[in-house]
Amino acid sequence: MNKYLNDQAFMVEALQLARKGLYTTRTNPRVGCVVVKNGEIISRGYHLSPGKPHAEILALNTVRDSSDTTLYVTLEPCSHHGKTPPCAEALVAAKVARVVTAMRDPNPLVNGKGLEYLESHGIKTTTGILEADAMELNKGFVKRMTQDRPYITVKSAISLDGKTALKSGESKWISSDESRLDVQKLRARSCAIMTGIDTVLADDPSLTVRLSKEQLGIENNIQQPKRVILDTQLRISANAKTLQTSEDVIIYTCAKRNDKFAEIESNQVEIVNTERSNNNVNLQAVIIDLAKRGFNEVLVEAGSTLVGSLLKNHFVDEMIVYMAPHIMGHSSYGMAKLDFIESMQDRIEFEICQTRKVGRNLKLQLKPQYS
Amino acid sequence: MNKYLNDQAFMVEALQLARKGLYTTRTNPRVGCVVVKNGEIISRGYHLSPGKPHAEILALNTVRDSSDTTLYVTLEPCSHHGKTPPCAEALVAAKVARVVTAMRDPNPLVNGKGLEYLESHGIKTTTGILEADAMELNKGFVKRMTQDRPYITVKSAISLDGKTALKSGESKWISSDESRLDVQKLRARSCAIMTGIDTVLADDPSLTVRLSKEQLGIENNIQQPKRVILDTQLRISANAKTLQTSEDVIIYTCAKRNDKFAEIESNQVEIVNTERSNNNVNLQAVIIDLAKRGFNEVLVEAGSTLVGSLLKNHFVDEMIVYMAPHIMGHSSYGMAKLDFIESMQDRIEFEICQTRKVGRNLKLQLKPQYS
Repeated sequence: MNKYLNDQAFMVEALQLARKGLYTTRTNPRVGCVVVKNGEIISRGYHLSPGKPHAEILALNTVRDSSDTTLYVTLEPCSHHGKTPPCAEALVAAKVARVVTAMRDPNPLVNGKGLEYLESHGIKTTTGILEADAMELNKGFVKRMTQDRPYITVKSAISLDGKTALKSGESKWISSDESRLDVQKLRARSCAIMTGIDTVLADDPSLTVRLSKEQLGIENNIQQPKRVILDTQLRISANAKTLQTSEDVIIYTCAKRNDKFAEIESNQVEIVNTERSNNNVNLQAVIIDLAKRGFNEVLVEAGSTLVGSLLKNHFVDEMIVYMAPHIMGHSSYGMAKLDFIESMQDRIEFEICQTRKVGRNLKLQLKPQYS
Repeated sequence: MNKYLNDQAFMVEALQLARKGLYTTRTNPRVGCVVVKNGEIISRGYHLSPGKPHAEILALNTVRDSSDTTLYVTLEPCSHHGKTPPCAEALVAAKVARVVTAMRDPNPLVNGKGLEYLESHGIKTTTGILEADAMELNKGFVKRMTQDRPYITVKSAISLDGKTALKSGESKWISSDESRLDVQKLRARSCAIMTGIDTVLADDPSLTVRLSKEQLGIENNIQQPKRVILDTQLRISANAKTLQTSEDVIIYTCAKRNDKFAEIESNQVEIVNTERSNNNVNLQAVIIDLAKRGFNEVLVEAGSTLVGSLLKNHFVDEMIVYMAPHIMGHSSYGMAKLDFIESMQDRIEFEICQTRKVGRNLKLQLKPQYS
């Protein structure tokens, strides 16, 4: 087998290991690593959660003699002191012969410096093996490191004719059991779930992950994503379900501080005062703040007003649409409110990245092509 | 190889031959045939068009000695005198040893009698091999023979949020070039294209097949499907494009005979007076009349009013939806007008039979599950 195909095959293994951290590494990236000697994998490692060892270190820990080994790692080894010492130094100390990475670390503190350090200490490096897969796995981390924004995914459940609910508000039959399970996994991998106050008032959702650790295939208890509620006038009730079941909730509001603040804050809820724009919480400010908190992936589960605003401002990176093959025939509630579309040229175009049957429904992964 | 797998493999060949008649056999069924001797195909045949020999006869014509042969045919050999003599008699005369069919002939004049005739003359028969594929290929013929109705397929082009056009009526960018090409093939296989007068007045479509015979892979000139227009008050203009480019157009109306009738009829257009129901042309009467004319597959390309009425009355057998990944965000024109849906229980549910990327769009084949 030629070396390039070998590199790909071992990187596939490293990526599979990285995926084991899907629900637990936040706010760190998901990273996997295999150590190869004489064409055989002799050790494996993956990053579990912040403060825990990096994948490379874990993998090297169980190798007695790491000379003449090639280390495959999905992300460039770090060269800076974070919560753990730089991995690049450890690899040099371990006398690894060659390091193959899927992608450079987008963190401006590293971004090539790890590879340079290795090269300057006599370790051969190759990068860019299965880069697209590695980027997709850490799309949130990449987005935050390069653009100071989280990766924003909007989840929507629609009927074949684009409806999210009947005029009566009735919607529960749009999603199937399988789609709901799939959404739970989307939630579990996200740092935060964002919604608008209208959805909270209308549906009173809890917005938590309700899968067991066994269902997610993880060992430790589930770390709930943060709930983020945009509530311009602080209309939320202290009895809202999401405030009861939450470990941590962040409410962004433009309201002036009043008695209600203290009542809500007593529930481990953080209220953030934000500037106003067009009579609503300023979305840009919220998004920058979420990135500052280290949130990589934010899942939006909201109504047409918030989804429409996010799309209009080009803040949506991806849409996951569960399409139920029903015709509802009512023009009541659509998927996104976009009043600026006057001609076909104004429409927002997407690329269909993936389609998959989920039960009786169709799951579409779409990426907007903003012009 | 066991006999059953052999039977399947040869039937696949026969089905491929049958498909060669996709654009030309109407109003007859598409039928293909292979003759097998000592495990080898020694002859092939398919039905080309009405009045031309049946597939079995064509295939046998070039076989010198058809004793000890097995004949694979996608449809039960006919036992009645139509435009051609019964094939069952010809097979007996040819001393074929065994006949394998994909499906029984749904024509009540045959429906098992062909197979009985063969058996009673010492020919072994097997039926039901790849039956579902054979039924799908002749879904229109089956529908007409068993239910005295054509198979009605509704074609729709929608955006991700279920819109067919902007308020301005602008819609041309919903379909991509690839989708339009695909629609041309849907038209070419149909006996008739049905639309409503609102679509004729708004878009003035020609509703013809504009592919060359080379593009369709056929040898003879293209036989245009009939254009069928539902026009309760005979509002159509004698200058409408579909009346100019047509070979044959049928207009169903409830209007009383007046001067306009003669003006329109001068264009090789047939006007059929039909009873009224709910202020519109009676759909049931139209559909029965189309079946009487021998139409197997009818393609509906219409607006939300006609599509809604067809769905409401359970007349739609299939929907082909070209979904363009755009968000249009306007509630202007939806896919189907269905005013009777008050609760989720009223919605019309579909099964997603197939999904396929067509250019940048997604093509969905859906079958309604009327309850």
